[in-house]
Amino acid sequence: MKVTNEKKAVVLVSGGIDSTTCLAIARRQHYRIFALSFDYGQRAASEIKAAQKVAAVFAAEEHKVITLDMSEIGGSALTDSNLPVPEQESEGIPITYVPARNTVFLSYALAWAEVLSAGAIFIGVNAVDYSGYPDCRPDYIKAFETMANLATRAAVEGNRIKIATPLIDLCKAEIVKLGAELGVDYGPTVSCYQADSHGRACGLCDSCRFRQRGFRDAGMIDPTHYQ
Amino acid sequence: MKVTNEKKAVVLVSGGIDSTTCLAIARRQHYRIFALSFDYGQRAASEIKAAQKVAAVFAAEEHKVITLDMSEIGGSALTDSNLPVPEQESEGIPITYVPARNTVFLSYALAWAEVLSAGAIFIGVNAVDYSGYPDCRPDYIKAFETMANLATRAAVEGNRIKIATPLIDLCKAEIVKLGAELGVDYGPTVSCYQADSHGRACGLCDSCRFRQRGFRDAGMIDPTHYQ
Repeated sequence: MKVTNEKKAVVLVSGGIDSTTCLAIARRQHYRIFALSFDYGQRAASEIKAAQKVAAVFAAEEHKVITLDMSEIGGSALTDSNLPVPEQESEGIPITYVPARNTVFLSYALAWAEVLSAGAIFIGVNAVDYSGYPDCRPDYIKAFETMANLATRAAVEGNRIKIATPLIDLCKAEIVKLGAELGVDYGPTVSCYQADSHGRACGLCDSCRFRQRGFRDAGMIDPTHYQ
Repeated sequence: MKVTNEKKAVVLVSGGIDSTTCLAIARRQHYRIFALSFDYGQRAASEIKAAQKVAAVFAAEEHKVITLDMSEIGGSALTDSNLPVPEQESEGIPITYVPARNTVFLSYALAWAEVLSAGAIFIGVNAVDYSGYPDCRPDYIKAFETMANLATRAAVEGNRIKIATPLIDLCKAEIVKLGAELGVDYGPTVSCYQADSHGRACGLCDSCRFRQRGFRDAGMIDPTHYQ
């Protein structure tokens, strides 16, 4: 029987504020970091570059970038270039919601965690996200964890995996304040849904607006470069 | 609000006996079929050809073949060419187990089901599989369904998705008997973990042995071509 290494964690890294703060938290908790990012046909390729930079900053032992065919599935403004990214606030679940995205991401993380015998998967979902995205809600995360603990060889052998969501009750301002306390430099991060190839943000999409409001409410300076 | 179309089903199709029987059952239940296969770095590329043939036989309205980077994750004889496929029966979870494979497959199926507004996902897991693979067990499937019904926009809007496992309590012999009753031709199917490029089976791996035993116990002739 292979024993789960509680001090190894797979950390989902998008290159934005939330996952970067998650990296800092996992590091502070003395986890050995295995960073996982996805190239899933999202508009902002500069997200991947940002993910690489932050994974390096937090001394990830390995950083995998998995190419996923999600544009093949479609149904979101982030993966279907025929659907425009909205530049005003909207009611309900936004068109930038990617069907079952976190379920696909967490499934890959689970596969890698099993191969590594890691004891935790970190994901930066939070209160801002789950007002809009169904797969960021606490009930969903709990159900994924239950399923994950039935899905694997490790589970059969009694080694539990934890889905760690240290930001889940925090708003954006609380997240950047926490990051600042942990010494995070948000300079290399990219939040924008449609950043240009230099990582410069549009300043208009939901994600840009949440970021700006977060830094403003926290009384901090946002190091983002805008187009 | 988009209403779930209970008569659309995403059917996971590997090109083997189980998923082909599943297709026949979904068809008999008058579902409109949307077939989903994965090219995940498995050894037997002829599986994909078999999947295409059977999807066509059962008049799938669409057949997506998604390329997945699972060899990047490793940890299985099916996706890592350095690990040999065993040719004798072994105890416990076999080395052909692919970490979190069904979770990744079902997650993609969930994403597509959401885009299609489909009411069901069919997967051919069964009693033979779940003696070895953790992600074929009834408890696992139930937990995935619970998670799926929290994960999506459709779920938030009250449209439930069902994970249909019509073979779950059947052994191989019962599956091929059921298929025969439904008029299934198993000629185009491929079960072997290491079939050659013509779809000819090794006759030695676990999957070949289960197939042979199934046909023998059912008193039926196996149309497989062996190397």
